[in-house]
Amino acid sequence: MIRIALDAMGSDNAPQVEVEGAAEALKELPAEFQIQLVGRKADIEAALGRSGAADRARIEVVDAPEVVGMGDKPLAAIRGKPRSSIAVGLDLQKKRKSDAFISAGNTGAVLAASTLLLRLHPGVQRAAIGALFPSAGQPVLVLDGGANVDCDARELVGFAHLGSVYARDVLGRSNPTVGLLNIGEEDEKGNAVVKEAHQLLKQTPGLNYIGNVEGRDIPVGEARGQRLDVVVCDGFVGNVVLKFYESAGRVFVSLIKREAPDVLQRPEMGNVLKVLDYATYGGAPLLGVQGVVIICHGASPAEAIKNAIRVAAQAVRSHLSDDIAAEFSEGKVPA
Amino acid sequence: MIRIALDAMGSDNAPQVEVEGAAEALKELPAEFQIQLVGRKADIEAALGRSGAADRARIEVVDAPEVVGMGDKPLAAIRGKPRSSIAVGLDLQKKRKSDAFISAGNTGAVLAASTLLLRLHPGVQRAAIGALFPSAGQPVLVLDGGANVDCDARELVGFAHLGSVYARDVLGRSNPTVGLLNIGEEDEKGNAVVKEAHQLLKQTPGLNYIGNVEGRDIPVGEARGQRLDVVVCDGFVGNVVLKFYESAGRVFVSLIKREAPDVLQRPEMGNVLKVLDYATYGGAPLLGVQGVVIICHGASPAEAIKNAIRVAAQAVRSHLSDDIAAEFSEGKVPA
Repeated sequence: MIRIALDAMGSDNAPQVEVEGAAEALKELPAEFQIQLVGRKADIEAALGRSGAADRARIEVVDAPEVVGMGDKPLAAIRGKPRSSIAVGLDLQKKRKSDAFISAGNTGAVLAASTLLLRLHPGVQRAAIGALFPSAGQPVLVLDGGANVDCDARELVGFAHLGSVYARDVLGRSNPTVGLLNIGEEDEKGNAVVKEAHQLLKQTPGLNYIGNVEGRDIPVGEARGQRLDVVVCDGFVGNVVLKFYESAGRVFVSLIKREAPDVLQRPEMGNVLKVLDYATYGGAPLLGVQGVVIICHGASPAEAIKNAIRVAAQAVRSHLSDDIAAEFSEGKVPA
Repeated sequence: MIRIALDAMGSDNAPQVEVEGAAEALKELPAEFQIQLVGRKADIEAALGRSGAADRARIEVVDAPEVVGMGDKPLAAIRGKPRSSIAVGLDLQKKRKSDAFISAGNTGAVLAASTLLLRLHPGVQRAAIGALFPSAGQPVLVLDGGANVDCDARELVGFAHLGSVYARDVLGRSNPTVGLLNIGEEDEKGNAVVKEAHQLLKQTPGLNYIGNVEGRDIPVGEARGQRLDVVVCDGFVGNVVLKFYESAGRVFVSLIKREAPDVLQRPEMGNVLKVLDYATYGGAPLLGVQGVVIICHGASPAEAIKNAIRVAAQAVRSHLSDDIAAEFSEGKVPA
């Protein structure tokens, strides 16, 4: 049995979208998967009653009477609200009563609680958020998507390893390529940290490092004539670009809706809009902690929650956490 | 008379697109404007002969037999090729024989040569590239777009002043708003440099600083309920986002072309595609040097060159360089 804990109080429209997302996910997942809805029991039961579609035999409701708000300070929230859905959901995993945790709640609180409760794998210096960017080709995993604003070169090398394991296990990429986000392809480009990281990455065995890549390569999904699987950057740059991309996609779709609304209904446009549609991608993994944690947008619709559950399921099935532990224990990653 | 020097050897399709862009620009500019085409005289004359449309009485061809290649190292190119179109074009302005310089050539060489030959205004610590981002509202000026990869907090404050003057003089924004690019709106967000810059900007008189803004605000063209005019960031982040945006727009248009090509022909789509179309914007000013310098993409079509000339004309007419000198000499900007 594989148990996925879902923070039912996280999203802007909690717990309804979480309940609906869970119900949809269970229709697609094999029978061995169960979902633990964590949050205010009465609210969850009411939402389950409204939705009606859920396979109740595969859903467990885990009561967590406290809720971390979007405005709460992360550490204070974790310490002050030990019975919040975030703390309770992660504690299940810590106690081996759950295999994954998904939340669309306060990202800072999920980060802090995950690191405190699950701890990092030995050898991992920082956990990173892996953000999947739609592209003209395959999606590109960019990390860090915002967990760490100041990073040194060795931490960026760590992100390259974390991203490579995730790309293999969850995205199904064999020998995934890794690029370092920079402002040019040449060796001498970049700020001090990035220049040092480039030299370190070139010397690191076990990575398929293809060199410096640029912002333009991400939407294309290719760099230096190869498919681009993993892009490494600090969490400041990653977060700015991530939010920029999401917003640019939304703006573009809303402009079409205003100017030529029928265009959006055209079936051929489905393949185009998919590139702009974050709901398809669902959740961003927090990589480096001992366990599986998926972070969703506060504005996630039920489809995004469903997809985050699918991603969590794949992470558990592929033994992502064990594989990350192995990657960092084999002496490949410099301390 | 206002004379605009145009590097005729800069773009990927030089000198043809430069000659065509100049011819088109002259049709729209008042009679007082003249264009100096700088480069290999024979090549320029041949291109002028092919185009035929140019008003020759308003075009001067200035011979510059050397060409800086895209692969040349900036400083070595400037020192080793004193008769290049970049060096000759900027030297005209230094000697007051020209009022502006435009180049689609090697950006690093244009940056280095501009700083060396024209020098910075007193009080300006670093020149910055102002990149105009299309948005759902008015275009947003983001700087630095790539001239400086490592910036300290005071330099970011300097960029806020440079951008504000440009937004007033060239974009016609009164009391332009300034946002600091960050990963959240709260005071405590950001890396060390950005946090310090936020505190400095809040205390700086003479700026309409509206606080931290996020990547998502740029495509919308608004932040905190106000029109967003100027966004300040270091050149690493700015360059990554700039290249990302250009590429995302291209990818999106090419996907529509592949899936539903007739959609692009729809007249209502014009307003949508404009948001993705860099050619409309043309050139990025190099702000902080004593003079007017506009940098264009190597891949610029004639329309982008034409628009860069229009931007240069507006910068000269509005006395941009004098206004920047005044902004930095009035004791507003801390040294």
